[in-house]
Amino acid sequence: MNGAESLVATLVESGVDVCFGNPGTSEMHFVATLDRVAGMRAVLCLFEGVVTGAADGYGRMAGKPAATLLHLGPGLGNGWANLHNARRAASPIVNVVGDHAKYHVQYDAPLTSDVMALARTCSGWVHSSINSRSVAADGARAVQAARATPGQIATLILPADTAWDDADGLAPALPVQSAAPVSIEVVDDVAKALRASKRAAILIRGAGLLKPGLEAAGRVAEATGAKLICDTFVPRLQRGAGVVEIERIPYFAEQIVDFLAGYDTLVLVGGQPPVSFFAYPAKPSWCTPEGCRIVYLAQPHEDQLGALQALAEAVGAAPQAAKRPKLNVPDSPTGGLSQATAAMAIAKYLPEGAVLIDEAATSGLAPYGFTSTAAPHDYLGLTGGSIGWGLPVAVGAAVACPDRKIVCLHGDGGAMYTIQSLWTQAREKLDVINVIFANRSYAILNIELMRVGAGNGGPKALSMLDIGSPTLDFVKIAEGMGVSASRAETAEQFADQFADAVKQKGPRLIEAVL
Amino acid sequence: MNGAESLVATLVESGVDVCFGNPGTSEMHFVATLDRVAGMRAVLCLFEGVVTGAADGYGRMAGKPAATLLHLGPGLGNGWANLHNARRAASPIVNVVGDHAKYHVQYDAPLTSDVMALARTCSGWVHSSINSRSVAADGARAVQAARATPGQIATLILPADTAWDDADGLAPALPVQSAAPVSIEVVDDVAKALRASKRAAILIRGAGLLKPGLEAAGRVAEATGAKLICDTFVPRLQRGAGVVEIERIPYFAEQIVDFLAGYDTLVLVGGQPPVSFFAYPAKPSWCTPEGCRIVYLAQPHEDQLGALQALAEAVGAAPQAAKRPKLNVPDSPTGGLSQATAAMAIAKYLPEGAVLIDEAATSGLAPYGFTSTAAPHDYLGLTGGSIGWGLPVAVGAAVACPDRKIVCLHGDGGAMYTIQSLWTQAREKLDVINVIFANRSYAILNIELMRVGAGNGGPKALSMLDIGSPTLDFVKIAEGMGVSASRAETAEQFADQFADAVKQKGPRLIEAVL
Repeated sequence: MNGAESLVATLVESGVDVCFGNPGTSEMHFVATLDRVAGMRAVLCLFEGVVTGAADGYGRMAGKPAATLLHLGPGLGNGWANLHNARRAASPIVNVVGDHAKYHVQYDAPLTSDVMALARTCSGWVHSSINSRSVAADGARAVQAARATPGQIATLILPADTAWDDADGLAPALPVQSAAPVSIEVVDDVAKALRASKRAAILIRGAGLLKPGLEAAGRVAEATGAKLICDTFVPRLQRGAGVVEIERIPYFAEQIVDFLAGYDTLVLVGGQPPVSFFAYPAKPSWCTPEGCRIVYLAQPHEDQLGALQALAEAVGAAPQAAKRPKLNVPDSPTGGLSQATAAMAIAKYLPEGAVLIDEAATSGLAPYGFTSTAAPHDYLGLTGGSIGWGLPVAVGAAVACPDRKIVCLHGDGGAMYTIQSLWTQAREKLDVINVIFANRSYAILNIELMRVGAGNGGPKALSMLDIGSPTLDFVKIAEGMGVSASRAETAEQFADQFADAVKQKGPRLIEAVL
Repeated sequence: MNGAESLVATLVESGVDVCFGNPGTSEMHFVATLDRVAGMRAVLCLFEGVVTGAADGYGRMAGKPAATLLHLGPGLGNGWANLHNARRAASPIVNVVGDHAKYHVQYDAPLTSDVMALARTCSGWVHSSINSRSVAADGARAVQAARATPGQIATLILPADTAWDDADGLAPALPVQSAAPVSIEVVDDVAKALRASKRAAILIRGAGLLKPGLEAAGRVAEATGAKLICDTFVPRLQRGAGVVEIERIPYFAEQIVDFLAGYDTLVLVGGQPPVSFFAYPAKPSWCTPEGCRIVYLAQPHEDQLGALQALAEAVGAAPQAAKRPKLNVPDSPTGGLSQATAAMAIAKYLPEGAVLIDEAATSGLAPYGFTSTAAPHDYLGLTGGSIGWGLPVAVGAAVACPDRKIVCLHGDGGAMYTIQSLWTQAREKLDVINVIFANRSYAILNIELMRVGAGNGGPKALSMLDIGSPTLDFVKIAEGMGVSASRAETAEQFADQFADAVKQKGPRLIEAVL
């Protein structure tokens, strides 16, 4: 048994049985191992940004890490942006990066770079294996690190000689470090704060955004009058008919200020106070009202669900939340195609248990609104703000949840970052509907150009925000990668195509021309 | 005048008049400036790997830096791999990375990351501007740093408030730090070493690979019997009919060992001793024969051309090199399409002054061979080994050399990394012929899998090297981005399509099915 075999066997033993990869020469022993060690599914992606985004989507939906397989510094560089998004979602990822054999680094061969320094900028845990006999143990530690609540990116750098030299066998799985309990004193303090408050909001992130957490939070809200709120960009939120509702904080700083105005108490459950996404001249970065008391019920590494349930008891809440939205979907839309009419069709036909991935940017407001009372589903948001995330995340979510329909709503600008994802969707026959909102613009930047006080923009500036010349033909691009695709230019066309895609299995792309 | 205006005016004043960009909110003031400050051409790319690759291609061909415009840590991450390639080519790049306003970083908003730490891993020079009144001076320093011989990546991090706050005006251009002269003592020592040698090789990189350097080197070779050699992957090499020829070191370590066997002296001109690209079990990393004397004529920051010319005098060389290849191109090929028949057509129709960009990987051997006696041209190689480089570099080379035909030879696997380049080629109407060698495989990895001693590979391993399922349709993908495209399946089809593309202006893609 060589180091690579001991590592893959250890990963499988530790519950990591999917590897998204784009390997090169230095990873060939890891690749060869896939046939020698049972139990690891390998999913090839044509670009490392797809690899890391897929690992993010998988981590969010499977609740456990996938492994990646990246090729030296450049592979990690290509995967960096979606690791950033994953880090901001606290997704668990075992990020395996091949490197030159240790003795080879001294020669400064063309692919040499400081992989450790690069890994430190995007990881919660980093280790470079010293030799082939410690790789298995390092793998077990990487899985443990990735799974530590709330989840993090554990980067294991694998010098090629640690993969090909002899090893002793697999390492046993290490215990998963579960969420730290919240003390009853903290819970009681929060309960007191809520009682003392005239107007309170409870901001929830992490495990509290799944049904049981929302249920407990809903009981607290009904007992205390507190409002339940979540970040604009959430890692994973369960929502729709029958699920206790939570209100999303708006995107722009001045909207957040208005949204929070009048609150005297902000309770944090796994999150931080909301701030402006960007800085703007003469606009606030900090959005919590002056004098508002901030109390932490649970930190990100703590047991948010347990804390919410304990808080419900502490405030004497009823045993069940009463307020839940009923299923309420619009009629199938007619007329012109807009984000609103597209959203009506999406809400109407969204199947129960769907995973809704939202990188629709400016086109995402109406879909978010209309789906709030659609069939219950999981919603994944762009936590790190780095575009080119949605299509890869759809790959990972589909691998994690083969029996659920994945619906990926995407802006055209962001879609072009990691468009190679479509090929992996086709190759793995993943059940994904990709909706590309083609407004042929980085539309958000037209708004931001004015908001930053840079004026309306002259022709050269505006041309840098315009992706309509030449027009991107997403139908051809998707077909070129083996994904069935169609274009919708009216609401009826969109509704027909979306309804049809819901009925079929396998990947599909709809270009929604806005 | 604000900081962004002072910066752009300074860049233009310093000779940087092209900016490849993919900006976001934090760069909006820079963008707005494009209409207020004259002289900066802005080229939009749909992904930052295209931005940095284009800057590499521009730097190599223009001999001066372009600016980039990247959006925070994720934008830099997306551009990292092609910055790695550029760093390995010593390309001059002024790498401008927007960041959050300094006072905003404390709030850890979603796009926050350690941009400085990330920039350090891919830059030769890094600075983050302190305030708007120093941005202009920082810009002048960045240009000076980028242009210091042999060229480097100078990363200027631009916090948003340094762009929008008031500035005093542009900063004057700083003197370009030219190549350091090589002392006559060093030249004489090398001349002595060559005289004492029974069999010598002169390894040239950098400025020595342009015509005047090759001319001087050719004189030395004829006077001393030394062999002229260059790295497998060169930043820029002038070659073809009438240009003194230099032999390329082969790729694999054991081939390099054979290639250098029997040499007692290795003279280095701007380069380092050749080493194995990767490490392999029981194969050498160091390839220079034991006992071979290594002498440095010029370091990378020194004047390679001057040193070669002085060496020619020191060895009493004739005033002109006599040995140069004559124009010798094959007949137009017939029959099956292979890299050899494609190469024949490329060599036959390659126009004088073309820029030949080579990321053809395993399909590149025959094209390199056949074009050695084609019309004189510039040849650009994949210096950093990170694939997804060629198509972006074609963008930059075409912007730098609007009157020259750019021919980009690309493997299909690498092409999918930065396929978005085609859109910018279409948008800017760049005169590029993209040839995609579609062998539907990461073919090099099939060789490497065996070379690393990992065995032949079972079905799962081999599937990770196979990109043929589903088949990528590069014609559709290119058309989807506005580039005319065709597919060739016979030698005649390829020759006709390539000859036709040479006659036309503007971007074109040929999928060569191997």
